[in-house]
Amino acid sequence: MFAARINRLTSSLVRDILAAASKPGVISFAGGLPASEALFRPSQEVLNQLPDDIWQYGQTEGEPVLREQVAIRARQLGIACTAEQVLIVNGSQQGIDLVSKLMVDEGSRVLTESPTYLAALQVFRLFGAEFVGAPQDEEGILPEALAQLDARLAYLVPTFQNPTGHCYSTARRKALARAFDLHSMVVFEDDPYRDLSFDGPAPAPIVGHLEKALWVYQGSFSKTLAPGLRLGYLIAHPELIQALTRLKQAADLHSNRLSQAIVAQVLIDGSLDQHVASVLPRYRQKRDAMHASLQRHVGSKARWDVPVGGLFFWLELTEAQDTMLLMEKALAAGLAIMPGAAFDPVPKTAATLRLNFSHSSLAQIEQGVRVLASLLT
Amino acid sequence: MFAARINRLTSSLVRDILAAASKPGVISFAGGLPASEALFRPSQEVLNQLPDDIWQYGQTEGEPVLREQVAIRARQLGIACTAEQVLIVNGSQQGIDLVSKLMVDEGSRVLTESPTYLAALQVFRLFGAEFVGAPQDEEGILPEALAQLDARLAYLVPTFQNPTGHCYSTARRKALARAFDLHSMVVFEDDPYRDLSFDGPAPAPIVGHLEKALWVYQGSFSKTLAPGLRLGYLIAHPELIQALTRLKQAADLHSNRLSQAIVAQVLIDGSLDQHVASVLPRYRQKRDAMHASLQRHVGSKARWDVPVGGLFFWLELTEAQDTMLLMEKALAAGLAIMPGAAFDPVPKTAATLRLNFSHSSLAQIEQGVRVLASLLT
Repeated sequence: MFAARINRLTSSLVRDILAAASKPGVISFAGGLPASEALFRPSQEVLNQLPDDIWQYGQTEGEPVLREQVAIRARQLGIACTAEQVLIVNGSQQGIDLVSKLMVDEGSRVLTESPTYLAALQVFRLFGAEFVGAPQDEEGILPEALAQLDARLAYLVPTFQNPTGHCYSTARRKALARAFDLHSMVVFEDDPYRDLSFDGPAPAPIVGHLEKALWVYQGSFSKTLAPGLRLGYLIAHPELIQALTRLKQAADLHSNRLSQAIVAQVLIDGSLDQHVASVLPRYRQKRDAMHASLQRHVGSKARWDVPVGGLFFWLELTEAQDTMLLMEKALAAGLAIMPGAAFDPVPKTAATLRLNFSHSSLAQIEQGVRVLASLLT
Repeated sequence: MFAARINRLTSSLVRDILAAASKPGVISFAGGLPASEALFRPSQEVLNQLPDDIWQYGQTEGEPVLREQVAIRARQLGIACTAEQVLIVNGSQQGIDLVSKLMVDEGSRVLTESPTYLAALQVFRLFGAEFVGAPQDEEGILPEALAQLDARLAYLVPTFQNPTGHCYSTARRKALARAFDLHSMVVFEDDPYRDLSFDGPAPAPIVGHLEKALWVYQGSFSKTLAPGLRLGYLIAHPELIQALTRLKQAADLHSNRLSQAIVAQVLIDGSLDQHVASVLPRYRQKRDAMHASLQRHVGSKARWDVPVGGLFFWLELTEAQDTMLLMEKALAAGLAIMPGAAFDPVPKTAATLRLNFSHSSLAQIEQGVRVLASLLT
């Protein structure tokens, strides 16, 4: 009775974990939520001076003033673009839906890192994508691998990746850009964590190094300001922006104008940068606390890198074990964690976990890591 | 290079007309915009007392308090449902995207009225639907026709339809419900204009009369409050709500929480009903003005019914003519109108126009109808 794609709607495991994680008394390392105290709340002044026209239907592309601000920032990152290439979306998730509609037929081959952002996998899969793996190292995909691959689209999270936290070097970015140019693959660079960088600015986006390949670059205000605003943006190669805009129109006409007016104001008056600057020390402190707790309690039962940006630790457990069972035991003990297998485009055997450090308090981080350590064999 | 569906992304004709219609000095009968003075603007009190948790990620289903309010109102309309069957979406357009994802494969047969809401046709077409016509009269589809039809989904706008303004009687609604039950067709009832009723309450929704058939009912706050809020809702049969919720999660995680908090407050404190009551007399006055102008200037060059609800007049021109050319001539003369052909699921030959009466001032209505009349052969 349903459309065929409904058979590819993946299980609600992640929804179930996140629902369990939100119960009172549960320490959650499972989601990717900003800390409550780090959320940007617009001032009463901003709320009381909203433009009067925002209650009417708006432009599909987004508010012109917001698109202009996004383009200015993108150019500072080395992405040659104009405001006409910017499309405002309801958070990154909608960007993935729109790019999937643009590029993914049943059986279309999509190159991704492995592991990669699970909600992107869910959407690509819904539209019928088949995932193409590639040789990779700590930084991500190896440029020389592209010659052997047959993929229409490459989805990359090269900066403080979710789930691994890895960040491609500038040299790797340039080499990959050359390879994408050579093999005419469409590049979709998802970059929500860029501003959450603990050791100085992250390397410039890959798409800024492209010369021939078509591309879509995606950013979000969920991690820097507030997820409840539901705002992100796509910036696309001129050959792609018209189709993406029509797909956005078909999806929901346009994004929320109230949120767009707030974020535009925040970009113009400099309070985005101020807010991020105020949040970074807290996140750095939490990251350091989780690293110290892991060293104290988990020790040699897992290996991990200290993330230089983003919101997650990625643990590779030393001993093989059923991480689904581990997740269930942890939940029973009041701790929510995310099995790494959820992030695999194709099943792997490694026992891995993703731990979020931004949402919990320092005390919860120590207590949660203790619980986790007690459950590790 | 693109996905096959991109070949089905229909032309930007409507976007072009609406863009031209928004130019200064153009009188627009083309869109479906509420009057600027009829838009609901939340009070500073509401904006300054927003719940503190709305800046974090929210539930995919929507804010519990808003879902509860929607369910209460739906039950008053005869739809037996609980808040668990309510899914908050970014306006009706997103509801159509989600139902299409749920039901429409390439080649899936979808029954619609003819003409019907053009943006619904665009989305169904994008997902590969083939449209099934049915014998219909002024009220819409004839129940006895369903036996002959092979369709997976029926999309209906039975109350003050866009574009015709037609409204199904209670008897027709009940008879159609029995036919849908008999033939096990999934019913998607789109009901954004219900509250804009000029002659007392509209007949209860069709889905409330169903006993066996699966159904989705859709409402919107764009026409009663403000389109910029981008909020509507689906209410679905228990067998459909889980898949729709997962599709919403894949589409954009959840709807804007700021707008949800505002609309929940407006429903709770009764200001939605107050606002609609204040808007109706103005819209009735504009409808009467357009009818009078049409009688004065267009006279026998067209026939039309006076709409008892909604936002549109539907004109059937007495003489055959190219309405695309008419539209272009009108634009050159400072008037935007919508050729009726845009609303046809399959091409027809009738010369028809849709005229919106809500957005223009009384003076603009008179002037615009004069321009139109001067162009009619």
